[in-house]
Amino acid sequence: MSSAIHAAAALLAHGWVDNARVVLVNGMITAVEHGVAAQPDDERAGWLIPGMPNVHSHAFQRAIAGRGEVRGSGEDSFWSWRQAMYRFVERLDPEAMLAIAAMAYAEMLEGGFTRVGEFHYLHNAPDGARYCAPAAMADALAQAARDTGLAMTLLPVFYAHSGFGAQPPLAEQARFVSSVDDYAMLHTACSGALAGLADAVLGVAPHSLRAVSPAQLGALTDLAGSAPLHVHVAEQLREVEQCVEWSGQRPVEWLLDHAPVGPNWCLVHATHITAAESASLAASGAVAGLCPVTEANLGDGLFPAPDYFAAPGKWGVGSDSNVRIDLFEELRWLEYGQRLTLRRRNVAALCAGQSTGAALFEQAGQGGAQALGGAFGIAVGNPADCVSLDAGHPAFAAIPAALRLDAAIFSAGREAIDGVWRRGRKVVSAGRHHARDAIAARYAATIARLTA
Amino acid sequence: MSSAIHAAAALLAHGWVDNARVVLVNGMITAVEHGVAAQPDDERAGWLIPGMPNVHSHAFQRAIAGRGEVRGSGEDSFWSWRQAMYRFVERLDPEAMLAIAAMAYAEMLEGGFTRVGEFHYLHNAPDGARYCAPAAMADALAQAARDTGLAMTLLPVFYAHSGFGAQPPLAEQARFVSSVDDYAMLHTACSGALAGLADAVLGVAPHSLRAVSPAQLGALTDLAGSAPLHVHVAEQLREVEQCVEWSGQRPVEWLLDHAPVGPNWCLVHATHITAAESASLAASGAVAGLCPVTEANLGDGLFPAPDYFAAPGKWGVGSDSNVRIDLFEELRWLEYGQRLTLRRRNVAALCAGQSTGAALFEQAGQGGAQALGGAFGIAVGNPADCVSLDAGHPAFAAIPAALRLDAAIFSAGREAIDGVWRRGRKVVSAGRHHARDAIAARYAATIARLTA
Repeated sequence: MSSAIHAAAALLAHGWVDNARVVLVNGMITAVEHGVAAQPDDERAGWLIPGMPNVHSHAFQRAIAGRGEVRGSGEDSFWSWRQAMYRFVERLDPEAMLAIAAMAYAEMLEGGFTRVGEFHYLHNAPDGARYCAPAAMADALAQAARDTGLAMTLLPVFYAHSGFGAQPPLAEQARFVSSVDDYAMLHTACSGALAGLADAVLGVAPHSLRAVSPAQLGALTDLAGSAPLHVHVAEQLREVEQCVEWSGQRPVEWLLDHAPVGPNWCLVHATHITAAESASLAASGAVAGLCPVTEANLGDGLFPAPDYFAAPGKWGVGSDSNVRIDLFEELRWLEYGQRLTLRRRNVAALCAGQSTGAALFEQAGQGGAQALGGAFGIAVGNPADCVSLDAGHPAFAAIPAALRLDAAIFSAGREAIDGVWRRGRKVVSAGRHHARDAIAARYAATIARLTA
Repeated sequence: MSSAIHAAAALLAHGWVDNARVVLVNGMITAVEHGVAAQPDDERAGWLIPGMPNVHSHAFQRAIAGRGEVRGSGEDSFWSWRQAMYRFVERLDPEAMLAIAAMAYAEMLEGGFTRVGEFHYLHNAPDGARYCAPAAMADALAQAARDTGLAMTLLPVFYAHSGFGAQPPLAEQARFVSSVDDYAMLHTACSGALAGLADAVLGVAPHSLRAVSPAQLGALTDLAGSAPLHVHVAEQLREVEQCVEWSGQRPVEWLLDHAPVGPNWCLVHATHITAAESASLAASGAVAGLCPVTEANLGDGLFPAPDYFAAPGKWGVGSDSNVRIDLFEELRWLEYGQRLTLRRRNVAALCAGQSTGAALFEQAGQGGAQALGGAFGIAVGNPADCVSLDAGHPAFAAIPAALRLDAAIFSAGREAIDGVWRRGRKVVSAGRHHARDAIAARYAATIARLTA
């Protein structure tokens, strides 16, 4: 089946072109023309940019957005938030997982993301028993991807311990834990869950050095092969201190010394790293999975970006807790966090004359695609995963082409997102997912049930 | 003329009530009922919250949003951004000012603000000469307020010097400067500009300690009387260092020692203050005018909020450069900036059990109203300046009333804003200002002319 999208302008690998015509066969891009008129059956777009990979999501946490901003009796931290999150988790079943993930995924598409890296650890029933279908929860996530059209890189999480040195898991972690053998079976079942889902990728996710022993990490690394391997690392200072106590090394330092960290790895957060760790991580070719909005919400701290960006180290962005789902806000505040602490401007732009917005977008796209085993870019051979910006938004009035991404990221924000195509199928128009009303109604009913 | 707005719920001074009916006469609230049904002619609203005062705006800077994010040849800073802003300013005339300000003001209403504190310094013609009508630029700003319905506190700026110790103004500051006598005339003319504009307030704004001598500051303080007096202070470290060189004191310290700083004062930014300055500022009863998005964009630094909030010191938020106009983003990232650097959560909430969103909203509203000489709150005697949230937004699914503002600020964001009323007149529906299309077309034509 052949079709085409005609855009007033499109961002290709080498820059913006006008009057672009993206020709598709079965949702894959087979030609990109420019300087041409639209043909009668073409779909129409404003300014077409590539869809962005979202490197890190816990879809179910969308359901607690806005519910963890109340001050506790002590000093609030990531850890008190985690307790509240665990309490909510107790009530989730596969049906609720589907309803919540579909909502989050629809919002991701509306917010500029076209692929999610779902870091999925909620495998077991509330009492810790395996579901009859061991990948029942992964099935729900895959179904949410089907319902919304979002591309999925599923990252089933291995979780065995509550702390460094193979401490036994806590009671409230019973839904996450498995043995290495059980995990291998679960991984196979997850592969089944993705059957028939276009462009799906299956990876492996040791939760963190807190939750996985060195021997287990070795087994998981073998299982992953060259597939995406994601791990939480150095999100919280307490975690860094405990790692040093345990091993004499910091988490990123330990990983780089003891694991085959390379281009298929994504180190999620990597917030608390030294200059030496930053340089080694960049040299490894792995991707840093930065989650600016969630890291701010949780009070994690700021990733030391300038040296890492300049190395250049690879990085992507993730919406993580999904407290707010907005690609442009992630990029804007990744940059702004740096500006606020360094007290200078245009940190992500690496050379004179470069647009900060263009640098942020390109780096996040390239790094994100690498981390998720997906594609990024409007180019022949890629699926047509594209976002159309409303060229008539006031923020774009007489804006030079080179500054369009700056105007989108720093000024217009997600309000400028008009249409979104996933594998050539338009799933968002006028900023709204085509199935939004039904997905939102199911989501609302589910939250009502869970909080009753 | 009597009318009423019926809301599914409304946020009053003591908290949320259901089925609220806000009764209006000539746009002023004469009664607030709750637990009552709608009457046939009532306008309908979802969850009604008070409109927010925007304590600090330079409306014309909306036109350079997204145009200053390109890396320069040296290290980019506030000061290199200011040079670019000055170059743009050269081309502005009253007609362009009207077109740009109307766009910014429409976006403020869409973004949750119902009153602007316009810190207006672009008084003169490009060659520095007075316009024949000396308040020609203020007339344009007042007209933009009329065109959009936004309430205005006009703060005509006095600007005389380019640096501490009464240094002569730079050539590119010719459009800002006046003598004290000229300023008094200008101030009177600005009063005329506001004639017939409902709820308008006129204040006085010595630009900064860089731009105003102590004697001039004294004259301006006398002129202001009890009207709002706004001044830029301690936005940049360089400014603090130069103030210390000049006077032996830091800017806020100097002001508190040498000027009658009190409840009608708004110290805009106050970013770089010591613990002693913070305590004294809080004790003065003045308002700190915090501009989180702009301060991030310009790399100013972070206001040290915890001690000031706890004192408690008064504060409001401003969209300042208008690079992005979004009340909830200002509040969200005011809190998030603190979390990122302190590495803890729920900073603005001052006691156990308090919602951070509710604390942010209430404090910003009370402080903002004080700073602008306006009102805040859905209460008898106030103009009906209200914002309606879409209760059907997924972020609000089964959310307890006490967490509605958390869900709006941290999760839904400005996408949750549905209707906005100013002085009882609905000016925004479905998130769009009623005159948006015409205002955006005029704005686009103006930007095209200015950048041709």
